[in-house]
Amino acid sequence: MAPEGPQLDLQHVGIDGIRKPLHVERAGRSVALTASFAVTVDLPAGRKGSDLSRNAEVLAEVVDRTATHPVPSLESACLEIARELLVRHAYARRSTVRARAAYFLERGLSTDRTSLEDFELFAEAEASRGADGAVAVARRIGAEAVGMTACPCAMETVREELLREYPALGDPSLRTLPIITHNQRNRTRLTFELPPGADVEADAMIAAIEAAQSVPTYAILKRGDEARAVLLAHRAPKFVEDVLRDLLASVPLRFAHLPDATGVRAETRSEESIHKYDVVAEHTTTLGALRASTA
Amino acid sequence: MAPEGPQLDLQHVGIDGIRKPLHVERAGRSVALTASFAVTVDLPAGRKGSDLSRNAEVLAEVVDRTATHPVPSLESACLEIARELLVRHAYARRSTVRARAAYFLERGLSTDRTSLEDFELFAEAEASRGADGAVAVARRIGAEAVGMTACPCAMETVREELLREYPALGDPSLRTLPIITHNQRNRTRLTFELPPGADVEADAMIAAIEAAQSVPTYAILKRGDEARAVLLAHRAPKFVEDVLRDLLASVPLRFAHLPDATGVRAETRSEESIHKYDVVAEHTTTLGALRASTA
Amino acid sequence: MAPEGPQLDLQHVGIDGIRKPLHVERAGRSVALTASFAVTVDLPAGRKGSDLSRNAEVLAEVVDRTATHPVPSLESACLEIARELLVRHAYARRSTVRARAAYFLERGLSTDRTSLEDFELFAEAEASRGADGAVAVARRIGAEAVGMTACPCAMETVREELLREYPALGDPSLRTLPIITHNQRNRTRLTFELPPGADVEADAMIAAIEAAQSVPTYAILKRGDEARAVLLAHRAPKFVEDVLRDLLASVPLRFAHLPDATGVRAETRSEESIHKYDVVAEHTTTLGALRASTA
Amino acid sequence: MAPEGPQLDLQHVGIDGIRKPLHVERAGRSVALTASFAVTVDLPAGRKGSDLSRNAEVLAEVVDRTATHPVPSLESACLEIARELLVRHAYARRSTVRARAAYFLERGLSTDRTSLEDFELFAEAEASRGADGAVAVARRIGAEAVGMTACPCAMETVREELLREYPALGDPSLRTLPIITHNQRNRTRLTFELPPGADVEADAMIAAIEAAQSVPTYAILKRGDEARAVLLAHRAPKFVEDVLRDLLASVPLRFAHLPDATGVRAETRSEESIHKYDVVAEHTTTLGALRASTA
Repeated sequence: MAPEGPQLDLQHVGIDGIRKPLHVERAGRSVALTASFAVTVDLPAGRKGSDLSRNAEVLAEVVDRTATHPVPSLESACLEIARELLVRHAYARRSTVRARAAYFLERGLSTDRTSLEDFELFAEAEASRGADGAVAVARRIGAEAVGMTACPCAMETVREELLREYPALGDPSLRTLPIITHNQRNRTRLTFELPPGADVEADAMIAAIEAAQSVPTYAILKRGDEARAVLLAHRAPKFVEDVLRDLLASVPLRFAHLPDATGVRAETRSEESIHKYDVVAEHTTTLGALRASTA
Repeated sequence: MAPEGPQLDLQHVGIDGIRKPLHVERAGRSVALTASFAVTVDLPAGRKGSDLSRNAEVLAEVVDRTATHPVPSLESACLEIARELLVRHAYARRSTVRARAAYFLERGLSTDRTSLEDFELFAEAEASRGADGAVAVARRIGAEAVGMTACPCAMETVREELLREYPALGDPSLRTLPIITHNQRNRTRLTFELPPGADVEADAMIAAIEAAQSVPTYAILKRGDEARAVLLAHRAPKFVEDVLRDLLASVPLRFAHLPDATGVRAETRSEESIHKYDVVAEHTTTLGALRASTA
Repeated sequence: MAPEGPQLDLQHVGIDGIRKPLHVERAGRSVALTASFAVTVDLPAGRKGSDLSRNAEVLAEVVDRTATHPVPSLESACLEIARELLVRHAYARRSTVRARAAYFLERGLSTDRTSLEDFELFAEAEASRGADGAVAVARRIGAEAVGMTACPCAMETVREELLREYPALGDPSLRTLPIITHNQRNRTRLTFELPPGADVEADAMIAAIEAAQSVPTYAILKRGDEARAVLLAHRAPKFVEDVLRDLLASVPLRFAHLPDATGVRAETRSEESIHKYDVVAEHTTTLGALRASTA
Repeated sequence: MAPEGPQLDLQHVGIDGIRKPLHVERAGRSVALTASFAVTVDLPAGRKGSDLSRNAEVLAEVVDRTATHPVPSLESACLEIARELLVRHAYARRSTVRARAAYFLERGLSTDRTSLEDFELFAEAEASRGADGAVAVARRIGAEAVGMTACPCAMETVREELLREYPALGDPSLRTLPIITHNQRNRTRLTFELPPGADVEADAMIAAIEAAQSVPTYAILKRGDEARAVLLAHRAPKFVEDVLRDLLASVPLRFAHLPDATGVRAETRSEESIHKYDVVAEHTTTLGALRASTA
């Protein structure tokens, strides 16, 4: 073994990439998620190693048990794991648990043609042990939806070009005619850092994201639906900047029950049809700051 | 060790995921590729193990040497490796070498605004030792380009919808006005299996793919260029079926020098803006069959 | 639109990457899988496009319905989708459905310390319409398990080295002492192509793979278990060649009920601890050929 | 277009995933990297959109030009791009550039059997415009190496087990005999945030990482070399905790020329052979703090 160097403090030691079935029951609906977990604790100076088998044990106990005793949410499972980690690792002052899982909701452009669309859920919990032994916790919950954006900038320059080529397009009745542009797959994520006691519905977060994209996307679109989705997208052309700002601006109204101290993070990525690279935007703030900006 | 079971014949044993810088010199142009290789040989019944360190040695000798002695192409490096593997593995009857690398070409929608766009090259070589000890070889070369497709089907149904909503759109002068649809990032690959003696330029393969997409994509597009690219795409709307058929149909003309026995494989994937999933198409044939179909 | 070129025949046109929750009920056990599907049909010459929305509709009907009417397996869902695709795409002569999903089984080195370990299931179904309209089908089922291999070659050369350095190691009572070597994460997959009427348990396939690795791996290993797993691995050191041969050799006995015409494919990948690259092996054969070789 | 909501400030808007060949010349050595870039600027409230085409232009100008005018490093290219972004986006107060590239160094366990081994380089630059128009910059440079770790904990428990089973192992001359354990592929990254004027060699960072792993790994290992690498690893068994602490503890000595204000981040991941999941550790600190801890 290497000669003992100074036993430095380490902020995170743990395991990553452990997959588990997680049973969630919420609002009368029962869902089995295939979740992937990362679990770490800090390691104080002077302690040689973290007992990593305890991490896998806690995961097995908390998550495997949900087969018979479902949890109310992915983030509540994370929180329970984070708390239990501090019990098992007596030396640790902080534990972090992250999880993600595919999640499905019924969706359709027409109410008579719906199917299960896939989204992604994220959750994170941290537990910190204070000097007095009291444990403080933090929770983050995130949701991601794939939708469509249509570019407003290309639309304007194309319009100028088309007006030159097709003078009849200048007819006043055609003023609102939707004009071609590039449109693309957009992936947007919203994350809340929840103060103690606050709670939020993942479904409401997904609805907020879908409303901020040019149009949500659907697995089943018959010919008429497809035209309608294209029209909706071109009547709400959006830069990634617009997706993010519209999403952030909607948060105070849609999540009126959450306190000002709620952390808010929004990220978006458009897999540009007109470029080989992606266009991205990101902003991190608090609900209080958003309320002040959008008041 | 496990009791010796029957020593079955194995078709492929080797190493995968080894990255190397490969120096190519072709037509006076010198390029350094970061290539990833997979290298296998067969293992006859009765022989306990393949000496895998020889595979890494051959790779090091052939590829590392290109720093001072460049090869003419990725596929010629693969072929040299495949031949050398049969020399070093005296028991082996067949060797297979696969490689891939990012590749860059200067591109621009306007000739005065070009930049280096990224593509992907693929190569594969097989060497087989016959009963008489003679070695037969096969080579495959592939190229992939990311471009854009615009959907012709949604365009038609949207046109019908818009004609109802905007009667002035029926003006004969607007008959060719490009109509909104969904468009997306498209990734298309063309692969040739070359008979002995045949050769092909990767740049010509990339040009063939770009011509089959609705429009190629570019890193730099100023406002005017962007409008032009959008217009070009909407004037050549294509299903993945069309991309593949147009690409395959162009092969006999573009690659007139290749013999009928050349294998041809075309694959395309559109990362649909209007769905969360991709749309794909694939076809494998020979140049002779293509010539017969398109004559 | 591009001028109509020759409408070539295409072998595969469809959708890829669509995720769905799939409910399976088998042997009294009920499981909710998060499955990802790829679905294609052929497109005859002369037909402009494949109606891709039908693919998503069939998926939604067959898979979403399993929430209330579970299927017996991933491959039976694929088969049902493949058959239905030929009904909806009247022009198509062949349909292909592929699916994969994470899958969990209770495992433990000690029976009193078990947890859910994750595996991967694969399934594929093809339906072909003959000239007389009769539909023939083919099914493939695959399973993948991550385990551990210990290298027998390094073990032997290390032993020679250690004998020089530690003459006391030559003591006859130490003849079977397990010797250090490199060991690594191994990922092995077994796939069967099943003739009509044949059926196989994924759990039995996973058990066969685990038995062929040096040792299976487990999420929870207390100190004693960990030592035992290390010992087991070093008492069954295996090349990838050995893993594959032992797996293939076990198939005739373990799957005695399957007919000779059953296709068998075995693939293995060791993420070598001693190299930056992976070591791989692969073999494709039939159960009949295996029976002949191992008789 | 959506009705104008409040034009919120956004911290990051830009492009991601653009690949370019980058020519570096340093210490007389000329290298062509295939680099991938992400480039963003902030977007103040009130400004509708970021002119993203400028980002691609700057990249093309700075990076494509290196074909004839090589840069001294990946991070100097990032810094040049970050500065130029603030020139082109007059409204922006902050720009961020991230890049990564495969990188090769000659390595061998024996000096007479070397080959090019692959590593990964990371670089990041930020430029911030102050109220007075002065631009402040920050640079990060990271390097990653794949090596091997052997577990000290399993080694101890196995030793106890073996002593019971093989009493002859208690012979004093066998006290230092290396004992079996699990060993695995380890991926470790070191990142420095450099104060203005400070500079560091990526090669020195890679050497520091390799020294902290149980043993570096090599593409070519003949039988004797392989035994030697296995022995070296088992004579320096390390938890991820040890890898990280040894790496961090070595930084003050190895990088004595860097100032106390240098940020230091170390991350490690062991792809455990004995588990299906990874073991990870991470620590972020400053060189000053490390100097204080290890003094």
